[in-house]
Amino acid sequence: MSNDKPDSSTNPAAKLWGGRFSEATDAFVERFTASVTFDQRMALEDIQGSLAHAQMLSEVGVLSGDEYHQIANGLKEIAVEIEAGDFPWSVQLEDVHMNIEARLTERIGATGKKLHTGRSRNDQVATDIRLWLRGRIDRIGAELTRLQTGLVDLAEREADTIMPGFTHLQSAQPVTFGHHLLAWNAMLSRDFERLMDCRKRVNRSPLGAAALAGTSYPIDRARTAELLGFDAPTENSLDSVSDRDFAIEFCAFTALLLTHLSRASEELVLWASSQFDFIDLPDRFCTGSSIMPQKKNPDVPELVRGKTGRVNGHLIALLTLMKSQPLAYNKDNQEDKEPLFDAADTALDCLRAFADMVPALKAKKENMLAAAAKGFSTATDLADYLVRKGIAFRDAHEIVGQSVSFAIEQQKDLAELSLEQLQQFSADIGADVFEVLTLEGSVAARNHIGGTAPDQVRAACAQARVQIEGRH
Amino acid sequence: MSNDKPDSSTNPAAKLWGGRFSEATDAFVERFTASVTFDQRMALEDIQGSLAHAQMLSEVGVLSGDEYHQIANGLKEIAVEIEAGDFPWSVQLEDVHMNIEARLTERIGATGKKLHTGRSRNDQVATDIRLWLRGRIDRIGAELTRLQTGLVDLAEREADTIMPGFTHLQSAQPVTFGHHLLAWNAMLSRDFERLMDCRKRVNRSPLGAAALAGTSYPIDRARTAELLGFDAPTENSLDSVSDRDFAIEFCAFTALLLTHLSRASEELVLWASSQFDFIDLPDRFCTGSSIMPQKKNPDVPELVRGKTGRVNGHLIALLTLMKSQPLAYNKDNQEDKEPLFDAADTALDCLRAFADMVPALKAKKENMLAAAAKGFSTATDLADYLVRKGIAFRDAHEIVGQSVSFAIEQQKDLAELSLEQLQQFSADIGADVFEVLTLEGSVAARNHIGGTAPDQVRAACAQARVQIEGRH
Amino acid sequence: MSNDKPDSSTNPAAKLWGGRFSEATDAFVERFTASVTFDQRMALEDIQGSLAHAQMLSEVGVLSGDEYHQIANGLKEIAVEIEAGDFPWSVQLEDVHMNIEARLTERIGATGKKLHTGRSRNDQVATDIRLWLRGRIDRIGAELTRLQTGLVDLAEREADTIMPGFTHLQSAQPVTFGHHLLAWNAMLSRDFERLMDCRKRVNRSPLGAAALAGTSYPIDRARTAELLGFDAPTENSLDSVSDRDFAIEFCAFTALLLTHLSRASEELVLWASSQFDFIDLPDRFCTGSSIMPQKKNPDVPELVRGKTGRVNGHLIALLTLMKSQPLAYNKDNQEDKEPLFDAADTALDCLRAFADMVPALKAKKENMLAAAAKGFSTATDLADYLVRKGIAFRDAHEIVGQSVSFAIEQQKDLAELSLEQLQQFSADIGADVFEVLTLEGSVAARNHIGGTAPDQVRAACAQARVQIEGRH
Amino acid sequence: MSNDKPDSSTNPAAKLWGGRFSEATDAFVERFTASVTFDQRMALEDIQGSLAHAQMLSEVGVLSGDEYHQIANGLKEIAVEIEAGDFPWSVQLEDVHMNIEARLTERIGATGKKLHTGRSRNDQVATDIRLWLRGRIDRIGAELTRLQTGLVDLAEREADTIMPGFTHLQSAQPVTFGHHLLAWNAMLSRDFERLMDCRKRVNRSPLGAAALAGTSYPIDRARTAELLGFDAPTENSLDSVSDRDFAIEFCAFTALLLTHLSRASEELVLWASSQFDFIDLPDRFCTGSSIMPQKKNPDVPELVRGKTGRVNGHLIALLTLMKSQPLAYNKDNQEDKEPLFDAADTALDCLRAFADMVPALKAKKENMLAAAAKGFSTATDLADYLVRKGIAFRDAHEIVGQSVSFAIEQQKDLAELSLEQLQQFSADIGADVFEVLTLEGSVAARNHIGGTAPDQVRAACAQARVQIEGRH
Repeated sequence: MSNDKPDSSTNPAAKLWGGRFSEATDAFVERFTASVTFDQRMALEDIQGSLAHAQMLSEVGVLSGDEYHQIANGLKEIAVEIEAGDFPWSVQLEDVHMNIEARLTERIGATGKKLHTGRSRNDQVATDIRLWLRGRIDRIGAELTRLQTGLVDLAEREADTIMPGFTHLQSAQPVTFGHHLLAWNAMLSRDFERLMDCRKRVNRSPLGAAALAGTSYPIDRARTAELLGFDAPTENSLDSVSDRDFAIEFCAFTALLLTHLSRASEELVLWASSQFDFIDLPDRFCTGSSIMPQKKNPDVPELVRGKTGRVNGHLIALLTLMKSQPLAYNKDNQEDKEPLFDAADTALDCLRAFADMVPALKAKKENMLAAAAKGFSTATDLADYLVRKGIAFRDAHEIVGQSVSFAIEQQKDLAELSLEQLQQFSADIGADVFEVLTLEGSVAARNHIGGTAPDQVRAACAQARVQIEGRH
Repeated sequence: MSNDKPDSSTNPAAKLWGGRFSEATDAFVERFTASVTFDQRMALEDIQGSLAHAQMLSEVGVLSGDEYHQIANGLKEIAVEIEAGDFPWSVQLEDVHMNIEARLTERIGATGKKLHTGRSRNDQVATDIRLWLRGRIDRIGAELTRLQTGLVDLAEREADTIMPGFTHLQSAQPVTFGHHLLAWNAMLSRDFERLMDCRKRVNRSPLGAAALAGTSYPIDRARTAELLGFDAPTENSLDSVSDRDFAIEFCAFTALLLTHLSRASEELVLWASSQFDFIDLPDRFCTGSSIMPQKKNPDVPELVRGKTGRVNGHLIALLTLMKSQPLAYNKDNQEDKEPLFDAADTALDCLRAFADMVPALKAKKENMLAAAAKGFSTATDLADYLVRKGIAFRDAHEIVGQSVSFAIEQQKDLAELSLEQLQQFSADIGADVFEVLTLEGSVAARNHIGGTAPDQVRAACAQARVQIEGRH
Repeated sequence: MSNDKPDSSTNPAAKLWGGRFSEATDAFVERFTASVTFDQRMALEDIQGSLAHAQMLSEVGVLSGDEYHQIANGLKEIAVEIEAGDFPWSVQLEDVHMNIEARLTERIGATGKKLHTGRSRNDQVATDIRLWLRGRIDRIGAELTRLQTGLVDLAEREADTIMPGFTHLQSAQPVTFGHHLLAWNAMLSRDFERLMDCRKRVNRSPLGAAALAGTSYPIDRARTAELLGFDAPTENSLDSVSDRDFAIEFCAFTALLLTHLSRASEELVLWASSQFDFIDLPDRFCTGSSIMPQKKNPDVPELVRGKTGRVNGHLIALLTLMKSQPLAYNKDNQEDKEPLFDAADTALDCLRAFADMVPALKAKKENMLAAAAKGFSTATDLADYLVRKGIAFRDAHEIVGQSVSFAIEQQKDLAELSLEQLQQFSADIGADVFEVLTLEGSVAARNHIGGTAPDQVRAACAQARVQIEGRH
Repeated sequence: MSNDKPDSSTNPAAKLWGGRFSEATDAFVERFTASVTFDQRMALEDIQGSLAHAQMLSEVGVLSGDEYHQIANGLKEIAVEIEAGDFPWSVQLEDVHMNIEARLTERIGATGKKLHTGRSRNDQVATDIRLWLRGRIDRIGAELTRLQTGLVDLAEREADTIMPGFTHLQSAQPVTFGHHLLAWNAMLSRDFERLMDCRKRVNRSPLGAAALAGTSYPIDRARTAELLGFDAPTENSLDSVSDRDFAIEFCAFTALLLTHLSRASEELVLWASSQFDFIDLPDRFCTGSSIMPQKKNPDVPELVRGKTGRVNGHLIALLTLMKSQPLAYNKDNQEDKEPLFDAADTALDCLRAFADMVPALKAKKENMLAAAAKGFSTATDLADYLVRKGIAFRDAHEIVGQSVSFAIEQQKDLAELSLEQLQQFSADIGADVFEVLTLEGSVAARNHIGGTAPDQVRAACAQARVQIEGRH
């Protein structure tokens, strides 16, 4: 995992902060405390931050133009080396920052030792991680948009497809499949809002906070913020180096996102069961069984559902990490990266899986319709009918309850009872009752904002498209 | 906690949904599944929602004007009864909604049975909880503002007070106490931003989603949203009754808020110890010991620190609750209230405790100063001095490290070494070095946005005031 | 909630530790820091602990026999008062301990002031909470046993009832319903083991640790441990007052228990759906809908499933609470009680609900059998058949996969294909294949420890009974 | 990370379960659903399990002796290949099981296809993970023992070293450093107990449960259990393949262990601060600062403290994962490994760090003593003195409170007041009072089980050694 240079391992002074120490770091401790195995992932952001820092230092006169150009060229060559996979990462150099700085000095000589003027690893790592996360947020936002676009397209195609709407996993009232898909879309729209709200707080520049108190060099924090595309510098140096809110807020976003995907996944798993049999999930999102050759397992939604655990875990990891830490930076904070990285990866992968899968879902319309026709799902419509005949809602409710009990005894659905049978329970029931007991009638009647009527579903799709397209 | 009417307990039909059932609900199950012991807390919001619903029903012609007035008067009388503590809550009536509706019918007769037309308990409870939470958010926002105002006032008074700035709980560089307090303020500013972002998503009206699919009555969802002060109706009926994002997002806000307060609390506890002895915490925020009469325990910050656990727990409770729930409403969701209520109460209480306590904090300035003077806290200033003399930062760092080692051996601080002694480590050190080794010089030199220089602290206070006052 | 005596509110010296304080406690702070609203729940355990402490003090000569009898009689009268609901709890007296001690002195005079000799509230509360929890553990153990007994009885009755066994919610292989129920029982057996392991660590006596260091009185810790039914005194006084492991371990037990019940609940909800329709859940464990009179919602399992959230939350609350607390007692620890109380209540209620519900479950055997007959659930048996004919397992697997594909095209089950059709895929298939393709044959063939063969299920029931009955 | 063979990527039939599928698995989905990147860590356990399975199959006659020997030799060669790092892991072969089985067939031909007879990946993975975890538990137990041995040794050396005992981070009563260290040891003893309790439940063999229902082959589950060193087979096949309790229970163990280490770490960080200055932490457990050359940061304890977050997170990840999963195996369960692996690694690393560090701790005895002498830490002794003079405890408490207030005004400690001054508060105070006000007297007086008296500390050390050495 590392290509340690043998000479530095026996010489404690090779550590950049070794001046004060009289004893070589224990080899296990070195490995235990090093972060380079995971923080090298931010290497390009580290270089990006260093480039901006060096440019600003040259603009304010702390570095000469020549020094800046040496540093900038050196860093760009290192970036190439890293991207090519040729960089000699060393655990003894602890972290991505030390590795790159040491490499820079190796390449360009003594000028490399000037790069760290006016900053500290504390503000440097905070800058790197915000840059890294901002990049991930933008990719996640793009995948969210792709998924939502697919959902809305499918919802529009299925605006008239009737299926049972469930509460308590009991058939309650008929809805359309398009309407159901728009419920998923509504969840994801909130996720997108939250992601953008989080991005505002990620996109602030801690660079210049130095170790904790700022620096005595005449730095220009607004300039580095601008060069790095941040909206503004952060407000307070102590806070800047210890703040990990943005990581926690991002993990809270992923926890809610995965919660939503877990709910959709649960439904896909249910619908793919032979008991429901509402959808066909393409083979490429399924796998088979080593012992049961007939199985077609909905692996992708199951795995997404399972991954909810890991993001909830990462959220708790970071909240636990920060609980009761005194200001400013403590070594504990090194533990922020792995949960954050994995939460971002998980969000991106799961969105990608869903964005690929959703357009390929096939509704088994007859099965959905047949299921909706069972289970007295238009009972509410009967109650509403009675209310329109002048009966108070609670009394209507009671009448329908008795009708349903009777129908169960008769092993019939409500629409299969005769008018006479229905009139046992209320003389107000007329022949027009059978219109309201159809699934199509029931669905079409819920014709208001957010209702399941096909026209409302189409209108909601159109509005969702406006919202999605308005993102840029 | 309840005043159950004995007659209804033996008659299952007394349950409003009892028509279909042939067996009395088991008494334990009744208690186990009832929510009225905790959801009665939303009673006034339930009435507020019912008033808006009834008004809208009368405006669209589903209720007559007379019916509306009967219902409205009945509900208002019930509100008075509830506020007076005279309402006969019944566990057998399950929840706040059924209790109030049954009471309404008891009071105004059959018209009461019409109130529930065109809605369901599913959208009703979602409306109540959003109204309740919006009210809490506004109170919490006000307490946050009060706390921040106190913090900024104190920070300004202490803009020049020098204390050690810590990293790794080791004295690192001198900062001012005002600067430290502004770090707390920066955390709380983000909390306020997050609270307002959350409020946007709370303040949408699910009323009209009915059980899950909308209703066949000609309801006007925009009108009830307007009457209740919501920004808009929610988009999708299935989502509306099953969405608990707003509760989770609010709990995530409280988890971060308490994390911040836990960090400030940890520092108050440290500072109140006789080892640090940086502050005096007024007696009224402390308690004593039953066995050790000399003790003055910082109970309030300790308790706030401990309460971080409960809000983290509530966040996990709600995330676990919603994980992989299929649409739409499931009984599981009844479990959303207690964690949410307690998270809101905890946030409010802890903010109140801090808002009361912060203005009463007394800095022990001499102790802070003396602590800052120890621990080589101006070593970085020496390094910066050497860089200004033309030495590369990393070389300067090495020189300072050797100087500190020497000073430790001599049991002196850097400023106590002679020029000659210092020059052992670098010939570039001149007599002017002693200026940069003072605490005042160190602090004043960090004079950029977010730095600890007293002028920056005062400027930051002014800016914080603008931000806080701009909240309305 | 309290009946504060007005005189003490204006007199800070009325606080038992008021000697050193010069300022009245702020009224809000008083309410904020008081625990009596929830810790009064341990009142009888507090008295039990005090009785043992006083008896030991008299035995070692610190109290006279007469003093002990006064104290003992006073405490017993207070216990009666508490049980009758007549005790005047006061928030100003902070907690259950102070309330009871103050009441004792009120009743028996100055001797009451001697009770606290040689102890502190720190060891007192640790003792109370362990006594309280031990009592709950024993009740929870009894309910677990009741539930398991019901499960095993039902499993034995359903040892031959065939249903589909699922993996990935896809029908995999036939199993018996009895076998499925024993899987639940196996989970609960581990829960019982864990509960007993936890009890060992709960049942140790911290009494005598005093504030943190022990006491200078000649106390006999083994004696109080014995009087209170503890197995032994705890080992170290600093640890004794700060240890909350037992509460965390108990909450971890409840989290796993509820995880198990959530899994069983999920299955009950699925099985009660009209899509599965495998069971009939008695009406008394269900509730109806206010808008959909036909609904019979499986409220009890849904609610149990939802309550998993709250116990997971309590576990995190306590882990967060204890994270990085320095020794010994800190006020944070006051936050241990509410999560612990609620976790115990939740475990007890959910077990009770299940123990009542399980014996009332009715299997719909025809539906289970019909479902098992679909979905190629004996495909594995065909593969095993081929292996017995000498084909390597992986090759057999491939042959069965092709057969299933063909059967799907033909819209038939495997057993419905002709011998000729089957032989297309392997010449080794003979007429005897149809025996292994029956559900009964498939189930009976899995006749080894832990297998689903009815004989194994009955043997497993017998063994489970031995295990359950051996608990005492 | 993989060395995929190019030919298999274009041929879906190369998947071992490919018979039924008509479409190549999507490349992203392949990577998304594969587990081999992390489950290859259990490769040797997988081989160990396969060896036992094959031996049992040959013993019961399902495999011939010759087949068994071919398989066994092939597997052993593969083990060598894996240990040498030469194994060609393939993501297309999904997981460790398929990789090894495919490799076996590649090496030994068609006989390799017989290995999977009578088992499934579901019981195979459950077996592997239990074997892997058992190995880790034993290593963790050994490190715990090493740490405890070091702690007890140090405690004995420091049995007489007086330091302040803290409650609320306020000096409360003097204790000895040895006593304090034994409090840590008491926590770790419970951890060891819990680890062994967990091991009992880990060490049961699921092998033979096959996919979910057992198998129709005449397998001998007791024999494979014996060959693998398991205590017994698991009870129920459905439970065996879906149970992840052991992973959750282990993570709960690590959460408590790290909670304990976080508490010790917090104290080390405090004690290493210049404000406390109680200990010297060897350089090799510290690191320096890139900007502040004087810093010696207690990195190891800080990092351990921070790692509490990750194990709490893993516990929640697994609890969330299992919540409401229906039986039996679901793909979600693949998510169990990474949290479990990391929890085990974290526990082992942190224990190792502590076991190395503790024996190297140097107490700064004069600083500890000086701190104990401040803060009225013998006030309780004065109260106890008064009680022995016949004053009721609560009255004595009041007297001492007044004495402390007076001493604070005088800026003196209690022992520095004159007898006359003390007698202002109680005439019962005599010249012998000054004996009880010494630190040595205070400490020695707490001479009962678990008390801080040096003799008790030494006795407790001896008892701890007996307990530790009795482990095996």
